[in-house]
Amino acid sequence: MNAAVPGILLARAALSRLIEPSDTVGQALVMAVGPEAAARIASGRQMPGAADRRGLSALLEENGIRGSEQTLNEALGRWRPRAAGLAPERDLATVSRFGGTLLVPEDHRWPGALDELGLGTPFCLWTRGGTAIPPAAQCVAVVGSRDATAYGLSVTGDLAAGLVQRGRTVISGGAYGIDAQAHRSALAVSGREPEPGEPAQIPTLAVLAGGIDRFYPAGNEDLLRAVVDRGLILSEVPPGSAPTRWRFLQRNRLIAALSAATIVVEARWRSGALNTAHHAAGLGRGVGAVPGPVYSANSAGCHRLLRDGSAVCVTDAAEVVELSDPLGLPSAEPAGPGAGPIENRPDKRADHDGLAVEDILLLDALPLRTGSPVEKLAMVAGLGLPAVRAGLARLELEGLARRSNTGAWQRARRSGPGR
Amino acid sequence: MNAAVPGILLARAALSRLIEPSDTVGQALVMAVGPEAAARIASGRQMPGAADRRGLSALLEENGIRGSEQTLNEALGRWRPRAAGLAPERDLATVSRFGGTLLVPEDHRWPGALDELGLGTPFCLWTRGGTAIPPAAQCVAVVGSRDATAYGLSVTGDLAAGLVQRGRTVISGGAYGIDAQAHRSALAVSGREPEPGEPAQIPTLAVLAGGIDRFYPAGNEDLLRAVVDRGLILSEVPPGSAPTRWRFLQRNRLIAALSAATIVVEARWRSGALNTAHHAAGLGRGVGAVPGPVYSANSAGCHRLLRDGSAVCVTDAAEVVELSDPLGLPSAEPAGPGAGPIENRPDKRADHDGLAVEDILLLDALPLRTGSPVEKLAMVAGLGLPAVRAGLARLELEGLARRSNTGAWQRARRSGPGR
Repeated sequence: MNAAVPGILLARAALSRLIEPSDTVGQALVMAVGPEAAARIASGRQMPGAADRRGLSALLEENGIRGSEQTLNEALGRWRPRAAGLAPERDLATVSRFGGTLLVPEDHRWPGALDELGLGTPFCLWTRGGTAIPPAAQCVAVVGSRDATAYGLSVTGDLAAGLVQRGRTVISGGAYGIDAQAHRSALAVSGREPEPGEPAQIPTLAVLAGGIDRFYPAGNEDLLRAVVDRGLILSEVPPGSAPTRWRFLQRNRLIAALSAATIVVEARWRSGALNTAHHAAGLGRGVGAVPGPVYSANSAGCHRLLRDGSAVCVTDAAEVVELSDPLGLPSAEPAGPGAGPIENRPDKRADHDGLAVEDILLLDALPLRTGSPVEKLAMVAGLGLPAVRAGLARLELEGLARRSNTGAWQRARRSGPGR
Repeated sequence: MNAAVPGILLARAALSRLIEPSDTVGQALVMAVGPEAAARIASGRQMPGAADRRGLSALLEENGIRGSEQTLNEALGRWRPRAAGLAPERDLATVSRFGGTLLVPEDHRWPGALDELGLGTPFCLWTRGGTAIPPAAQCVAVVGSRDATAYGLSVTGDLAAGLVQRGRTVISGGAYGIDAQAHRSALAVSGREPEPGEPAQIPTLAVLAGGIDRFYPAGNEDLLRAVVDRGLILSEVPPGSAPTRWRFLQRNRLIAALSAATIVVEARWRSGALNTAHHAAGLGRGVGAVPGPVYSANSAGCHRLLRDGSAVCVTDAAEVVELSDPLGLPSAEPAGPGAGPIENRPDKRADHDGLAVEDILLLDALPLRTGSPVEKLAMVAGLGLPAVRAGLARLELEGLARRSNTGAWQRARRSGPGR
C-alpha cells in the first residue's frame, strides 16, 4: 500500500468498489468498526470478531433493521467476489489523472447534508471539477424526464437561469432532456469563469450514476465536460463503474440530499424523477412540481405529485427559492434582463379593489354616461341616503365618481396607477 | 294582495327586491321575525317592536356580528328607498309568464345545501327550467375566466362531458369563456331530452347574477335558452334586476353552495373564479384547480390556488368525481366513447417492476447479447453466489433471464402483459 496516501482514503475507495450504493449493512459496518477495519473485513483480509458483529447488530437495530448472525455473512458473500481485482491506489491515481479527487466524511469539505441519509450515506464521493460542493441551503435540484417536451425544456431553462441569478447552484443528473437543459442553462447564465482564487458560486453540479471518468450518456459528453470545467461532477461509485439501473436509482438520493429542494419539471406518470422527489420528501427537503397541460403525458407525474400533496406547485425561480429557503435567508437579487422570465402577476388594480361593500354597491349603481340624482342612486344601490352621500364623497376622492353642474352623479375612471 | 298566492311567496319575493344579496341584517331579520313580518318591516309597512330588535341582535351576535340599535335603523335606511315600486305579485306573474317559478326555503324542493350559507342564505330562488335542483352531492361547479384560451376551453369541454357521463350536473355562471363551454359541453353530451314524467338528471344549471328574464351576457342568449329548455337557470334577484358587480360576486357563493366541489379550469391571478373557489373552501366543499402551462396568464390563478393549498390538482373528470365524492358514493360509470378523454396513465409495466433489490442488481448485471457465467454475475452485481443462483431462478421464472447451452446467463425480454 502506498504510504503517501492516507489509509482512510484507500479504505473508503475500496469500500466504494466492493459494496453497492445503499447497502445498509456496509455503512453500518463502517460505523461500527471504522472504515479501515470495514474495508479489511469486506475484502476478506480480516475476519469479523464477536465484538464487531455485536456492534453491527446494535447499529442495524437502532435503524430499525432486523439483523441476525446471517446478515453479515450474507453481506460478505455479496462483497468478497469483488475483492479479487481490488486496487484502490489505482482508482485514486485514475481520478487524480482526470484532475479529480476523493472526498471522504473525515474531510472538512465533506457535505454534511449527506449524513442525513443515515445508513444510506455514501462511503465517499469521487469528484471532478474546480470548486467545493456548496452547502445544501444554496443548492436546488432540477430534474425531469429524458424525453422532455419543448415546454419542459423552456421552463427548465428559465428556472435554472433564474436560480443561478439568485445565487443558487443547480444540481441535476446529467441525463438527456430536463437534466441536460438544467445544466446547460445554468452554465449559460453564469457568464464568466471566476478569477483564480476567487471564491466562486458554482452554477451547476452533476451527480452521475457511473464513474466520473466516463461521461454518460455519450451525447452529453461536451456538456458534462463544461460542467467539469466550470462546475462539478461527482459520483459515489469508483472510476470505470457502469451506470446500472440500481446505481441510477441510488444516485437520485444523493441529488435529493445535496439540495434544499428538488424540483420536478416534467415527469411521466412513472419516472425516475419522482423517485428523486420521494427521496427529497423523505429527507424533509422541499419538493416542487411544475404544472403543465393536462394533455401532456410528460406532466402527468408532476400533477400526480401535486395531487397527492407530495409537492408544492412552482411556476418560476422566485417560487422555487421560496420553497428552498422557507425562512427567507438572504439571497442575491436576480440581476439583468431575463431574471424574471415568467410574469403572471400583472396586477393592474381594478377600480373596485379595496372598496368597502357599500362603496362597491354604489359604484355599481353609478351610471357611466348620464348623471343620476342621489335619491335614485339610493334606490338602485339599495342604500340609505346618508350612506349614499358619504359613499359618493369617498368615491369622488378616489377619482371614481364625479358630480355634474346639475348635481347629478356619474362614474369617473380612475386615472394613473391608483393610490 | 292576491289571495291565491301564499303570503310567504309574496314576502320572500318582496325581500329579494328590497334587500341586496348577502345583506346579513336582512336574513337575520327573517330568521328573527319570519319572512312576512320581515317584509312588512323592510318595506316600512310595520315598525319593528322591541322584541323584534332583541331577536335580531341575538341572531347577529350568534353569528359573530356586533349589532347595535343603529344596525337595524341603518338597514331600514338601505331598504326603504326601494319600497316605492314594490310589486311582488307582478314579479311572480312575470316569472310565471316565462315558465319559471319562485322557490322558497319553506318548499320541500328547496336545496338544503344553501342553508349552510347561514346569514348569507338567499331569501328565495327565482328559477326557470324543467326539473328540480339536484342535491349538492350530484353537482359540480365548473368555472373560470371569460377570456379563456383554447386549452382552457378544451379541458372544460372534456371535464363537463365526463361529469355528465358520470351522472353529475355541471353548475356554472353562464358567462363567456369557461362558463359557457361548461354548459355547452354538458348539454352536448347529455343527448336526448327525457321522456315526459321521467325523473331526469339535468346536465347543467346556470346561476345568474341578474334577473332570469334577461339572458346575460346577450351573446350567450341561445345557450342560456338551451339551458332553460334542458336544464335550469336560477337567480336570487327578481326579474328585471341588473347583473351588477356586487351581484356577480354574491352569485358565486350560490354556485359554490349548490355544488359538492368547485373546479377552476382557468383563472388569471385575480379572477372571479377564485372568489367562487374561496366560497367553496369556506363551506368545506371540495376545490379543484386544473394545471396549465406556467407561461399562461390564464392558469396563474389556478396555480395560485394549488400553491397555497386551497385547491387539489385535477386533470380529468374521474379526479373531479373523486374530489366531489371522497367517500366513493356510487356513481354511474362513464358510458360511450370519449368518456375518458385524458389518458396519462399508460402504465406499461417495466421489466424491473415488483422485483426485490437483489433481483434488480442481478437484472442490471445480465448481459443482453452474450452469456455470462454465474461467478462473473456475482462480481458484477455485487452479490454472493447463492444469491445469484436463487435470483437467476426467479428471473427465469419471470421470463427475464435465460440460460444458454453452455450454462451462461443472459437477459430475456418479458413477453405478454406481465403477471
